[in-house]
Amino acid sequence: MTKINSNYLKLQGSYLFAHIAKQINAFLAKNPNADIIRLGIGDVTLPITKTVLDAMHSAVDEMGKKESFRGYGPEQGYDFLINTIIENDYTPRSIQFSKEEVFVSDGAKCDVGNIQELFSTDSIVAICDPVYPVYLDSNVMAGRTGEIKDNGYFDKIVYLPTNKENGFSPSLPDTNVNLIYLCSPNNPTGTALTKEELKKWIDYATKNKAIILYDAAYREYITDETLPKSIYEVEGAKKVAIEFNSFSKTAGFTGVRCAYTVVPKELEAYTDKGELYSVNKLWNRRQTTKFNGVPYIVQKAAEAVYSPQGKKETKELIEYYMTNAKIITDGLTNAGYEVYGGVNAPYIWWKLPAGIKSIDFLDILLEKCHVVGTPGSGFGPEGEGYFRLTAFGDRDRTIEAVKRITSTKFV
Amino acid sequence: MTKINSNYLKLQGSYLFAHIAKQINAFLAKNPNADIIRLGIGDVTLPITKTVLDAMHSAVDEMGKKESFRGYGPEQGYDFLINTIIENDYTPRSIQFSKEEVFVSDGAKCDVGNIQELFSTDSIVAICDPVYPVYLDSNVMAGRTGEIKDNGYFDKIVYLPTNKENGFSPSLPDTNVNLIYLCSPNNPTGTALTKEELKKWIDYATKNKAIILYDAAYREYITDETLPKSIYEVEGAKKVAIEFNSFSKTAGFTGVRCAYTVVPKELEAYTDKGELYSVNKLWNRRQTTKFNGVPYIVQKAAEAVYSPQGKKETKELIEYYMTNAKIITDGLTNAGYEVYGGVNAPYIWWKLPAGIKSIDFLDILLEKCHVVGTPGSGFGPEGEGYFRLTAFGDRDRTIEAVKRITSTKFV
Repeated sequence: MTKINSNYLKLQGSYLFAHIAKQINAFLAKNPNADIIRLGIGDVTLPITKTVLDAMHSAVDEMGKKESFRGYGPEQGYDFLINTIIENDYTPRSIQFSKEEVFVSDGAKCDVGNIQELFSTDSIVAICDPVYPVYLDSNVMAGRTGEIKDNGYFDKIVYLPTNKENGFSPSLPDTNVNLIYLCSPNNPTGTALTKEELKKWIDYATKNKAIILYDAAYREYITDETLPKSIYEVEGAKKVAIEFNSFSKTAGFTGVRCAYTVVPKELEAYTDKGELYSVNKLWNRRQTTKFNGVPYIVQKAAEAVYSPQGKKETKELIEYYMTNAKIITDGLTNAGYEVYGGVNAPYIWWKLPAGIKSIDFLDILLEKCHVVGTPGSGFGPEGEGYFRLTAFGDRDRTIEAVKRITSTKFV
Repeated sequence: MTKINSNYLKLQGSYLFAHIAKQINAFLAKNPNADIIRLGIGDVTLPITKTVLDAMHSAVDEMGKKESFRGYGPEQGYDFLINTIIENDYTPRSIQFSKEEVFVSDGAKCDVGNIQELFSTDSIVAICDPVYPVYLDSNVMAGRTGEIKDNGYFDKIVYLPTNKENGFSPSLPDTNVNLIYLCSPNNPTGTALTKEELKKWIDYATKNKAIILYDAAYREYITDETLPKSIYEVEGAKKVAIEFNSFSKTAGFTGVRCAYTVVPKELEAYTDKGELYSVNKLWNRRQTTKFNGVPYIVQKAAEAVYSPQGKKETKELIEYYMTNAKIITDGLTNAGYEVYGGVNAPYIWWKLPAGIKSIDFLDILLEKCHVVGTPGSGFGPEGEGYFRLTAFGDRDRTIEAVKRITSTKFV
């Protein structure tokens, strides 16, 4: 008798975004002509830029000639891309990495979901609340949690409240934890951690022999130059942190699929016998066994993002979205709403009028404004009473959405 | 104190192909001018065909225009590709699937490695010996094995000897097993299972409530028309089997990255309470949580493989490689060697002269012929005394390799 991994049964019904899609479809079925504006899922809308397209066309041509055809590449990624990443994302910040420390993949979601495999199933996991659901879900699936309780919290998980009261910067846990997921700029609150705040976490991890899983997928949206774009800008991080990065939001690669993860050679964890073991070696083994690398064409596309013209185009993409963020933030603020984020992140974290549940507001906003957003409670219990809007929409549609919202009475 | 997943420590040193690469590099360092012919790793060498290239160029152009740009797609794959797969690979064989039963991914290696996550860690795993190492390694990592024993076998794994004595068709296990990995055509032995043999396994799985994980990545190399290309050609398979397929070897996609896995809705396994649960639902949850879909460009490329012209080109690729297979098989046979495979698979399974260990033969063949192959023992203890050659090389180089081998005395 084959038994399933019963941890899957602990998961909540369906993945947040799938649930939202279902709600929208139900609304559309009833209102087929509704002019819906989607500020829900954090998906980019501007096309891939010219420099990147040229690189892809050229790579496709290479694949068509015997002498330049590429079959299996290194699972970890081609040197040309890894070296380009190091030279552009780390060297200018005085951070040194060898090419064996950077792993190219098809998405930060995959790496963030798979990374927990490297660690013992009895590891104590700390996650911010609210936060991107994959950190929690992947650990539920692996059996690092108990059942979900009536209050919406999973047993055994250490939740780090990230709210208005602490300025959306989580406090250190008062118990000992092993794996700490940090996301900065945070999805969904839009808050980026300072160097001092990161230092606090690095010190905690160092002292408690914990490991920080640092999701920096939105780092290129940081506009405040005093804020770190990499956790490795802070001393001591190499010994305690893994960093996840992505081209999805930076260069509009959500449909192109490329990301990279840094696992420093200095990072170690303990065997059952209490001996130190290289986490870099574990990830390399995981990736070479269960992954076969990113398409050559896609890696050439990612390389092009770092060319002088590629950087210029990418900067324009980000500025476009951040102008949207300002339009939403200003619009809602001027209408008397309390909003957070939107300055160093493409997410606007909207405090709902008292008494409205965020899951209900999904329907209310759809019905009254034909605008889609994401209920805060989908990111964790502490997200209740909030709503996430994204800046990834079209300019005119974003302006229109703000107009609709600010001219509507919700209470 | 963060502890690692100590199951990783049970794994053998490095992944087989990484080890071989190291040996070759050591040889090359000593013999920098050696004219090496690589018949080791099963990687294709012919370029992507015109129809597929055209589809990729056109998809790249779509990504460059706002109105046709694609961001996140469905994690399971686009309908256009899923429907094309069903219409071409299953409908003509009178097998019906709905689109929710086919999952597009970036590689059969990933799916084959990840599928075990859906099942209880105390599942008893049966694997053919010898076979593609990922089945075993992914289960070692998940803790379904004990330590490796002196004889090269992992404790708790049920090995199914696949050898000359049983015609490379494994016998049923005499104990009860839960997960059965079958690979047909088999990598490395090159043997394809008949419908009768598959029926035997389906009956076993049905009776014992086991699940068959059927790797059909090489199915397009089957030339004997009486042999099944899909396990679902045999009645009862939908209730007990998952099938893995790939465009890697069919259409030369090893560097393009696309595959698909079929998880029938009829397939169920048991919860801890003994209730039946949909495995399709589990895989859907796994993929939506930890995977973000295949690049749009790659899915358009895969779709083009099924166009009339795409099919014609793909057939030519396969015929080219299978002619190589015949050249190797005939050459070695005429030289008095015992060889298997090469008729319904791109692999030739070469029985080495008595007394030569396959890992030693890697060096011998390199030294004497400057030809690279894969030691049989790398695929399991039962592979000892065998050597795998692949038909994926260039025609002239394959002829040259056979000439070198057949004109050399190894004992």
